[in-house]
Amino acid sequence: MSEIKTVVTPNSVILDGELNLECGKTLTDINLIYETYGKLNQDASNAILICHALSGNHHAAGYYQGEKRPGWWDSLIGPDKAIDTNKFYVVCPNNIGGCHGSLGPSSINKETGKHFGPDFPIITVKDWVRSQSRLSDYLGIKKWHAVIGGSLGGMQALEWSYLFPKKLKKAVIIAAASKLSAQNIAFNEVARQAILNDPNFLGGRYLDSGVNPKQGLKLARMVGHITYLSDEAMRSKFGRELKEDKLNFGFDAEFEIESYLRYQGDIFSENFDANTYLLMTKILDYFDPASEYEGNLAKALDAVVSQLLVISFTTDWRFSPERSREIVDALIEAKKDVSYLEINSPHGHDSFLFADEQYVRGLASFLEN
Amino acid sequence: MSEIKTVVTPNSVILDGELNLECGKTLTDINLIYETYGKLNQDASNAILICHALSGNHHAAGYYQGEKRPGWWDSLIGPDKAIDTNKFYVVCPNNIGGCHGSLGPSSINKETGKHFGPDFPIITVKDWVRSQSRLSDYLGIKKWHAVIGGSLGGMQALEWSYLFPKKLKKAVIIAAASKLSAQNIAFNEVARQAILNDPNFLGGRYLDSGVNPKQGLKLARMVGHITYLSDEAMRSKFGRELKEDKLNFGFDAEFEIESYLRYQGDIFSENFDANTYLLMTKILDYFDPASEYEGNLAKALDAVVSQLLVISFTTDWRFSPERSREIVDALIEAKKDVSYLEINSPHGHDSFLFADEQYVRGLASFLEN
Repeated sequence: MSEIKTVVTPNSVILDGELNLECGKTLTDINLIYETYGKLNQDASNAILICHALSGNHHAAGYYQGEKRPGWWDSLIGPDKAIDTNKFYVVCPNNIGGCHGSLGPSSINKETGKHFGPDFPIITVKDWVRSQSRLSDYLGIKKWHAVIGGSLGGMQALEWSYLFPKKLKKAVIIAAASKLSAQNIAFNEVARQAILNDPNFLGGRYLDSGVNPKQGLKLARMVGHITYLSDEAMRSKFGRELKEDKLNFGFDAEFEIESYLRYQGDIFSENFDANTYLLMTKILDYFDPASEYEGNLAKALDAVVSQLLVISFTTDWRFSPERSREIVDALIEAKKDVSYLEINSPHGHDSFLFADEQYVRGLASFLEN
Repeated sequence: MSEIKTVVTPNSVILDGELNLECGKTLTDINLIYETYGKLNQDASNAILICHALSGNHHAAGYYQGEKRPGWWDSLIGPDKAIDTNKFYVVCPNNIGGCHGSLGPSSINKETGKHFGPDFPIITVKDWVRSQSRLSDYLGIKKWHAVIGGSLGGMQALEWSYLFPKKLKKAVIIAAASKLSAQNIAFNEVARQAILNDPNFLGGRYLDSGVNPKQGLKLARMVGHITYLSDEAMRSKFGRELKEDKLNFGFDAEFEIESYLRYQGDIFSENFDANTYLLMTKILDYFDPASEYEGNLAKALDAVVSQLLVISFTTDWRFSPERSREIVDALIEAKKDVSYLEINSPHGHDSFLFADEQYVRGLASFLEN
């Protein structure tokens, strides 16, 4: 069976007007880069918004001309896939604060002629969802058929469901949580300290000086990566396998897992922006819809009218099934139309990227029924 | 009830002869610093050896003159405590490679007149146990009543049981594993990369230059600390509590857990040696007694004749109860005299430091019966 590679190209828009952020600051001339897959139908009722996670971007599916690797969620988005582009018009923007073309810390600040860097405001999931709503207006989509996201993307899908309840029919919240735990925040803090203390960070103004806090970013990614994989997945993938057959009594990478983490960290640190990474961790830490309702999540979700599907994975210890069930329990308490899928998968938090059969079937039937 | 503070002072010895290490190198003039609590009886049959873990040292119990904080295991060692110094003579050395007085990377290399630094050989649990056996000879202890350790200390107690089976009556292996998992190694590798890439590390020769790779060591400790606490313990201790009552939209410490980790990291990085930290992580990674027996742990433990007690804690995710049960299963398969205690404790891996009632009772009765 030969697969036809869909070639895609990104689009770009500058949103009208200002965006007043939760931090009190204002952004203007908001450039969003985004991709679309499939065709919008006549009454614009088949549009699906994909929200990306910490290290994601707008390139969710298909291939760029000449590239061998497809978008990050190509396993799920495409013709006859879980998110079927024969039926749906799929939109995925790079969020504000990102480093893949949308307005962010590595953009040029018109007022200074230099990179925003550390002057870029700290944004929130709410700010993102508001900017995505502006994008909907621009695209002529009054109501999304669905808003879908995994991890930090799932937090955006949840936010959509109560911030703009009438602007979506369905929400899918995958491998997410309604707020970070102290342990989650602790891992983010380690990542931040690694970046902030890299001598090349230069208070965030490294781009203006032509350097990159590569070591800090690499460490941050290595820590993150450990939390994305399950202990079980690591064991079956790497075990205690040595690169050579003997111990070397030195500090070069000896175990396969060491080489793997170093490699992943290196690649990432050459393709991602440190200020964006810092921002993303803060956006995660700050997300807590119940905080405005004295910790009552059900009250925070009172405005929801869409159908919701919450999905978790058994070996995910970053946002465990328990955390997903907190969302489900609150939605049930608030008498909402919620379904819950707990998928048996060995891939840890990263499971949301794999086209496991049960997961694909559950997602497809929720979107199509 | 007023508690009498036992004032203790460390002792020091230079071991006779050479120590041939597993890496092929040789150490001479091995200085070991150690403490003792209680009195050795006439036939030297009441001696207990305490093996310390990654960041531990010889100061396990009692108080130094003028100090407010006791030794790291004072909760368990003392008159009428789990390890009762009214009955037992307790010995705790600082291991070779340490940074609290025993021969290690921060000692002066007589051949060069400079600090050993990165020239200090990478040692193993076996090397440690051999050096501890020399200490036994020096102290006139032919057979330990018990060898006890938690975490990396438990690995030493296990090693004692098959390396010198007739030199101990009992072994207590607490919150340990018979080998690290890929995830354990991964966390160690992050810690190592943090230290190795600190610009003040200077290839390990920072002491000769009068600097300290403080940031790297701080990060390493922060990562480690997360794995010592349970998610549950962090939640009940810190939750999502903010230092101030509002979000500040900046990168200063905002959540209590951030301040706590930074503080712990700062204190540690001022009191510990980076080369020692690197060594300790390698010693952990390398420990795998079954590797010489085609992965068969029962065979590796065939020589054991002592009674053994294995203890684990329910919320420990660094070395979970499952890992302890692997040791117990192998000991049962090898037909050894083993008891197992799984303690319900909320403190994660750090539980071995707390005098939980069930834990104290189990340990005391194993030692005294």
